[in-house]
This record gives sequence, structure tokens and C-alpha cells, in this order.
Amino acid sequence: MIERIQLGHGSGGRMMHQLIRDFFAPAFQLRSLNDSTVVDWTSTGRIAVTTDSYVISPYFFPGGDIGVLSICGTVNDLSMAGARPLYLTAGFILEEGMPVEDLKGILNSMKIAAATAGVKVIAGDTKVVEKGKGDGIFINTAGIGIVEDGLDLSPAAIRPGDNIILSGPVGCHGMAVMAERNGISFEPKIISDVRPLNRLVEVMLGTTKDIRVLRDPTRGGVATTLKEFAIESGYCMMVQEDLIQVPPGVQGACALLGLDPLYVANEGILLAVVAPAVAGELVREMRNTAAGADAAIVGEVSGGPKQTVLLKTGTGGSRLIDMLSGGQLPRIC
Amino acid sequence: MIERIQLGHGSGGRMMHQLIRDFFAPAFQLRSLNDSTVVDWTSTGRIAVTTDSYVISPYFFPGGDIGVLSICGTVNDLSMAGARPLYLTAGFILEEGMPVEDLKGILNSMKIAAATAGVKVIAGDTKVVEKGKGDGIFINTAGIGIVEDGLDLSPAAIRPGDNIILSGPVGCHGMAVMAERNGISFEPKIISDVRPLNRLVEVMLGTTKDIRVLRDPTRGGVATTLKEFAIESGYCMMVQEDLIQVPPGVQGACALLGLDPLYVANEGILLAVVAPAVAGELVREMRNTAAGADAAIVGEVSGGPKQTVLLKTGTGGSRLIDMLSGGQLPRIC
Repeated sequence: MIERIQLGHGSGGRMMHQLIRDFFAPAFQLRSLNDSTVVDWTSTGRIAVTTDSYVISPYFFPGGDIGVLSICGTVNDLSMAGARPLYLTAGFILEEGMPVEDLKGILNSMKIAAATAGVKVIAGDTKVVEKGKGDGIFINTAGIGIVEDGLDLSPAAIRPGDNIILSGPVGCHGMAVMAERNGISFEPKIISDVRPLNRLVEVMLGTTKDIRVLRDPTRGGVATTLKEFAIESGYCMMVQEDLIQVPPGVQGACALLGLDPLYVANEGILLAVVAPAVAGELVREMRNTAAGADAAIVGEVSGGPKQTVLLKTGTGGSRLIDMLSGGQLPRIC
Repeated sequence: MIERIQLGHGSGGRMMHQLIRDFFAPAFQLRSLNDSTVVDWTSTGRIAVTTDSYVISPYFFPGGDIGVLSICGTVNDLSMAGARPLYLTAGFILEEGMPVEDLKGILNSMKIAAATAGVKVIAGDTKVVEKGKGDGIFINTAGIGIVEDGLDLSPAAIRPGDNIILSGPVGCHGMAVMAERNGISFEPKIISDVRPLNRLVEVMLGTTKDIRVLRDPTRGGVATTLKEFAIESGYCMMVQEDLIQVPPGVQGACALLGLDPLYVANEGILLAVVAPAVAGELVREMRNTAAGADAAIVGEVSGGPKQTVLLKTGTGGSRLIDMLSGGQLPRIC
């Protein structure tokens, strides 16, 4: 039994075949170990396609690991396009010396996350790089989903008066990773919110078609996503600071480190811009789901300065929210 | 104008938006910078899906670079399933400090290779890791193609008496990379054979449907692919050593370094097992294409020892060919 990944595990010979047969094939129930997989396809119309590489450090963190992240992140990207996620591919770049136990744990997380989200991993690839040329494990997942006819979620559909809905509390993923990376422990302990959002989106689209756009505020956080909405729609996004839930642990950690929770990455919440007439009902339906239990209307699209995000503070003041130049925390996904 | 990749280019803020807008979007004519892309889809039946990560070192080599490789490799994986490649995704993991000029060159190669192969890159992602946690650039491409009804290429279809066709000379890619990596120059200079094989496969499938299986001998080379055919079909693959073309440069370099060209990676040739009745015509048609100009029947499926590869040498002897345990040359793709 090998304990650590070796260069030979990436070079096409017997060692690689064994690694795939023993670890990857069982995790994904792959029917063959070929380079391509052929699957039945019954739908015409439109498909959504996405890709994401995951380089998070450390690869185990409170509430998850790079494996669950690599499934949920890509499922969520498809979901934000209004697509029903069906198939994923998974490409692995392993660093020589990576403990095989870690790989096993990560693959198991992927298996569970894929089952939870109802998607299938149907093709994979493994490469190995020399020690010091990678960082344990990088995973790329690409995803394919089906988009219902007539559905076209886009910031271009945003109109003044629309409501802005946030599905849950902010900052958990980024701060959980940050704490783990720096060996800091906050009270209460911060757990990543990483989870698939496709069921929540199904409920939302089953409730109304008057949703303009959906987006999950990952890298760059809620602030960056709102700024993207503002730029891409041309309108002003006006949000109420006290309606955005920041868990006490995140609040404290951000204060301590001088970070703004609005810029911290999330992996299990979404922002939606919706027609005002449907916003109330939508929030009620969202709250009946696990991922949307804390959904709330947090703001609206206003006639304020074009392409801006205005944050109304509890004291009655307001401040402009911009995109950061770089980012607060590298490698949180 | 930035000269080197910085961590901020991966963190979701303005720097990342600029990098994508200035470099990635023009290369792939992306319609939006969103996480998912929605495209029209008119086909039902079956689709082929594949993924491959490219970690080749060095990322520029004689005859190509990691960009052209990342397009051709994935196009070829789809082609080997008998699929017509349509869409690709591209995920980039950049190392802090990578020269932006290099990235520009690689993206340009991808653009040209995609146009040559007739595929579209429709979704992308960029991550940046700290200096010393990557190696310049890693690229993952996933691909989607359409498989014609009734076509089912598989080693399970292989029968005794079938002919084995090789589409061109062996060993060029691996030895070109090896030479570049070690600063060695061979005469004549060795150039990688990296190229898309989808047109060649189109011609082949247009000529006959009596093709059992196609596979491109990349990592592990021709020897490993033949061994895979032998194991997966249960039969003996008998090939004539003197019918396998090894270019003089590759021959000399392998002799010097003690390598067997049959195990060296290729990126622009394929092995086909076909019904004997169609083999002659197929080779003639293949020779009318650029990628198949040197196609030849190099052996046949025999009643020899099960699951083996037998190499008949010029002197009338024969030797068994096995899979290597690890590989000869790490990171050649």
C-alpha cells in the first residue's frame, strides 16, 4: 500500500492505472478508465457550461475540503445560470509526496457532495508534478447543465425598483479558511458555508420566473457581486447594511483582522435580483429550504448614481461600495 | 502595463477582471465574463465528455506550447471516442511571477489551435497561486462532442485477424520536450507532433464504420496503448517493429538516453484497430490527410498469448512488450 503520491502515478503506466482503479474509479463509479466518456443525451435547446479550478489552501478546512468545494462550486456556477446541473468532469493535479490518505478523504467528500447535489462525475484526469511545483492538490471541475427554454437570467434584465435578495449569512467560508490557515480559533467557531445551491434555485424558479439574475458571491464577496450587478445593469444597487446577516464569529474575526465581511468569500449563498411583486413570496419559499432558511430582502435597485453600490448604514448614513483592486484573501477557493 | 502575474490577479477583484478582459476574453471571443456560458444545443443521442489537465514543463517547446497542447489533447481525446468535438472549457492556474508575455503567447496559441480544430472555448476560469506553489502555468481543458448514432468504438469490439494501423511516426513529442528541458540539441532537430486529429478521424469514419477502436498514444506511448488494447480486448496485439516509423532524430536521442521510443509520448498520432477487409482502403484515405500522411498497417490481432503485446523484430525474433510501472518522462503533457 502506497502512502504518498509519487511522480510515477502521473506518467501513464501501471502505477497510474492502479491509482485510478483503486481510488478514482470507485469514488465516481466510472464505467471505464478511458480518456472520454460517452453518455446518453436527450435534451435539445440550450446547455450551460462552466469550469473552475480549485486551489484552496489548506485543502482541509472547517466545514469541508477541496473535494466538496470542487463539486459545490461548479454545481453552483451552473445553478446561477438557471441551469439544472447534470454532469461534471474532474481533473486532478497532485504534488509528489501528497499523503494518499488525504486524497482518499477528498475523493470521498466529492462522492458525497455529488450524490447530495444529484450530479454525476463522468470523466477524470490525473497529473502529478514534482514536490515544490504544486501544493498538495489542485482540482478542476467542469460542468454541463440544461437551461429551461425561455429562461435567460442576466444583469441586463435588472430594472429600477427590483428587489435584492440574499439567501443567507455572509463571510463564513472565507473566514473559516482564514482561521484554519493561520491556526487561529474564533469563538463561536466559524464553519464554511460550502454547499450545493441547485435545490434552492429549483425552488426559486418553481416559484416565479420573474427572477432577473442569480449570482453566488464567492471570490470578492457580496460587495463585488453587487458591484458587478451595478456595472452590468447600469443601475444603482442600494442595500441596507443591517439586513445583511454577519454571524458573530465572522463579525469578531473580521474586526480583529481589519477585514470587511462584505468582501469575504462565500460558497453557500446567493444574491438574486427579482421583480418587486414576487419578492415576498420568493423569500417565503426560500426559507422553506435548508440553504435558504435565512433568506431576506436586503435592498433594491434604485435610481441613484449609475453603476454604483450604495450601502445604507444603521445610523442613517450611506457609503459607496467599490470592487477591491486585488483581493483580501488569496486562495480561498 | 503589468509584466508579471500577481496574486491579486486571482482574487476576484478589479485586477482579475482586467486580466480576463484584456487577455482571456479577446483570445476566446467570450461573450460575457460570467462563470457559466449558455449555448444553443440542437443534438440528442449521445455526447462524449472529457477532461485533461496540462502541466508540461517547460511550457514552451519545439513545435508548440502548453496552449496548443491543451486544445489539441482534449480535441483528440474526444476524437478517439469517435466524437465530433464542439466546445471546450479552459481553467488556468497561474503562478505568481509568471511573465504576462508568456501568458499572451500561450493564449494566442490556444486561439489558433481552436480555430484549426474548429472548436470553441466557451467558458474559462483563472486562479493564481503563490510563487513556489505552482510552475508557471497549468491549464485544464474539458471538452464536449457529439457521437454519431450507432457508433461505439471500444476495445471490446476487437477480434482476432483485425489489423492495427498507426497514423504516423512515433516519439516526437516526448523527445522534443525532453531535449528542450535538458538543453540538449539533437540533429536533425526533433519537433513535437502536437496537432488536432479530428479531421483525420472524420475522414476515417467517413471511409468505413468497421473501426473497432481508436486511441492516441500519449503518456506511456505506443507500447502502453497496445497493452491497454490487449488487456481490454483479451487478445494478443502482434506488431512488426520495422513497420513502426521512428524519425532519425528520435532514434538517436533515445539511443543516447537509453529510452525506448515505443514508450515515448506522442500528441499527434493515433492507433486504430480495424476489420482486415477495410484496412487497405482506410490507410489510403488516411494518407490523403496531413495528419495521416504516414499511416501504415503495423500489425494484427493474433491468437497469441492472451492480453499480451508481441513485437516482431526485423531479425525474425519477437519480444513481449509490457506497460512500464511508472513512466520514462514525467510532465510531458
